[in-house]
Amino acid sequence: MRVLACDIPSREGDSAEVCGWVHRIRNLGGITFVLLRDRSGMVQLVYDEEPSFGQETVVRVRGTVGASEKAPGGYEIRAESTEVLGLVAAELPLPVNKELDQVGLETILDHRVVSLRNPRIRRIFEVQSELLAAFSSALRKRGFTEVKSSKLIGSGTEGGTGLFSVDYFGETLYLAQSPQFYKQAMVASGLERVFEIGAAYRAEKHDTARHLNEYVSLDVEMAFIDSDSDLMDLETEILGEMFQSLTENHGKTLEEYGARVPGAEEFQKTPRVTYDEARQILKERTGKSVFEITPEGERELCQWALDEEGVEAVFVTAFPRKKRPFYTYPEGMKTRSFDLLFRGLEITTGGQRIHRYQELLDTLPRFGLTEEGLGDYCSVFRYGCPPHGGFAIGLERLTQKILGLQNVKEASLFPRDRKRVRP
Amino acid sequence: MRVLACDIPSREGDSAEVCGWVHRIRNLGGITFVLLRDRSGMVQLVYDEEPSFGQETVVRVRGTVGASEKAPGGYEIRAESTEVLGLVAAELPLPVNKELDQVGLETILDHRVVSLRNPRIRRIFEVQSELLAAFSSALRKRGFTEVKSSKLIGSGTEGGTGLFSVDYFGETLYLAQSPQFYKQAMVASGLERVFEIGAAYRAEKHDTARHLNEYVSLDVEMAFIDSDSDLMDLETEILGEMFQSLTENHGKTLEEYGARVPGAEEFQKTPRVTYDEARQILKERTGKSVFEITPEGERELCQWALDEEGVEAVFVTAFPRKKRPFYTYPEGMKTRSFDLLFRGLEITTGGQRIHRYQELLDTLPRFGLTEEGLGDYCSVFRYGCPPHGGFAIGLERLTQKILGLQNVKEASLFPRDRKRVRP
Repeated sequence: MRVLACDIPSREGDSAEVCGWVHRIRNLGGITFVLLRDRSGMVQLVYDEEPSFGQETVVRVRGTVGASEKAPGGYEIRAESTEVLGLVAAELPLPVNKELDQVGLETILDHRVVSLRNPRIRRIFEVQSELLAAFSSALRKRGFTEVKSSKLIGSGTEGGTGLFSVDYFGETLYLAQSPQFYKQAMVASGLERVFEIGAAYRAEKHDTARHLNEYVSLDVEMAFIDSDSDLMDLETEILGEMFQSLTENHGKTLEEYGARVPGAEEFQKTPRVTYDEARQILKERTGKSVFEITPEGERELCQWALDEEGVEAVFVTAFPRKKRPFYTYPEGMKTRSFDLLFRGLEITTGGQRIHRYQELLDTLPRFGLTEEGLGDYCSVFRYGCPPHGGFAIGLERLTQKILGLQNVKEASLFPRDRKRVRP
Repeated sequence: MRVLACDIPSREGDSAEVCGWVHRIRNLGGITFVLLRDRSGMVQLVYDEEPSFGQETVVRVRGTVGASEKAPGGYEIRAESTEVLGLVAAELPLPVNKELDQVGLETILDHRVVSLRNPRIRRIFEVQSELLAAFSSALRKRGFTEVKSSKLIGSGTEGGTGLFSVDYFGETLYLAQSPQFYKQAMVASGLERVFEIGAAYRAEKHDTARHLNEYVSLDVEMAFIDSDSDLMDLETEILGEMFQSLTENHGKTLEEYGARVPGAEEFQKTPRVTYDEARQILKERTGKSVFEITPEGERELCQWALDEEGVEAVFVTAFPRKKRPFYTYPEGMKTRSFDLLFRGLEITTGGQRIHRYQELLDTLPRFGLTEEGLGDYCSVFRYGCPPHGGFAIGLERLTQKILGLQNVKEASLFPRDRKRVRP
């Protein structure tokens, strides 16, 4: 019966079987120390003769557990029998058991299958898995239903640009940029509160540290809201719970990355400023006139929030109509919509939607759109639709900002960008 | 403060505000009864004058809660004020508050946005949401990490046929048929135990009650197995837990559908028969020679399992090599692989994989494949890979079979088939 590395301390004096990857081999003359890696951590094996396997070989080892002051974790296993389960057939293209500071991101991504063996890199995705679990759990306990919508669509709700086309039995379909239509349809159907975790596609030629052409979107949509304030309240709560989960279950990883997540109470203080106020704040802090909130401006606004409220996050609200999609709920020349900036990066866009059919029809010409051109979108509002709204969190961006990664691609297992289509 | 329909009984004598859709209106001369539907259920409203709104209008109503023997659920609200939140602008294309037995599936799917308002139809997806939660939870507590892999791939591991092509900045990519390569890569990287919930695409021209061209695949992959028996043990356990969750949380829906899920103990009895034994069983039961296990044979095998073991499920194991993909772990002319048949339908394919690099290379020519032609696939095995295997459950098929739906498309929110690309 296999024992995980993390459970070895409880087996002192017993015989134990461990399985894993050979992480490091140190031959000290008569004795060889082997560090074995499994999903739970590391354990030291001791061999009296130098073993014949090399680094990264997968082995099953039986031996006796003993305390050892010098062993990592305080225990080691005197190896009695070793079975090689998986051989190494080629030289490692990059080091698995060393810091990868000197290795460029392109190399890390080219050799993703190997670089993920590096525990520090692998832990990015253990954090991401926890974020998925905490997101779902926070929403389920608030009465939300998880949905799965089609990613093959006939036309885009965000306009026709930026879509990848798919040859669907000779017909041209597109990969969905967001489940916007579907999540609104589900809310209107009576589910009221839905969330979806799914892929989203943007055929944009950006090649920056902030962009991916395929990413995981954490989508939320909720009925019977009074305004977009309800959405910001909800997002603050669920992000607070997601941060809390990380603190509880991945404290070591956060420490390793020198990362700190805001406490739930601290995150509650996230200020909300209108788009115009944000521009004013930037003007005051930089001394320059501000027409648009640029990526640099987003970083400065988070710095402002940190200075003023002690939290590196800020909701920017009341975006001008022309900066938001046609379906955004208008309020004069502004909209009931928001971005959430976290540590200098926009990680969420959200807002209330127009829910009245006639109002939607009246809005379309202003955006150069027609009911027919939007496919089935408008049908959602034809049969009685409650006031509603929602938001979407980019999973990779959130992971990136939590761990302080330089590039969003580091937080995608197998990223796709303008040039990268493999592995 | 809004009160949900399900909480109305606790508000007797109080004033309460409810929001929802007008499900049914009955005018009895001087008095009008309105049944209001929200995500939690129904509540009866009583109006002294006939209200001006029609069916499916979305309203917010304030009034006093009182007990009433004749009201569904035993309570009703005397309406004091009503606010219309969402108007109905068109005639309903199909009934929302009646049985849909007389309405064909094509009509139900054409008008998905409306048919989902029918509570019976909507509940299919509440069940599906619970299955997603229970699947994740069963795996997480066994040390599995949730991963999200790219759906845009350069080539298929299942051979090049049956793939939808995507125009990716002028290059041709394909929509993944399964996360096979990625989940194996993650296992080999040291995560050991991974699962993924994601879309899978099959460009097959089937148009049957069992096929979808886009479906949700519940993928599992696990290292350090001894054989595919470990995988069947795991699947039996997690399906048992998923069934258990449905019994606990969706008993009413199961009842409404006349559906029964196997108890965890009952499901443990699921027999395992080899492919050859399965053919023999079919021969004995039908009196005919059996060369292939057809869909009809799958139904008969489940009937056999019910007769013999009292459970409508059977694992068919040891498929011949030529019936399985190249990566399947061979055992003579057979393989360590299985299908799980449930209520007459294959809901899972799984098996142990070849994990030794050289063995994999030796296998390729037999399938007419080359290392280069498989893109990055073989690189997973070059640097030390543990014995491993996995399986995938089709979410829509599982939902279909649990609720006894005629067609798998009924269990897909927005199904895609040969002809259906909208809504």
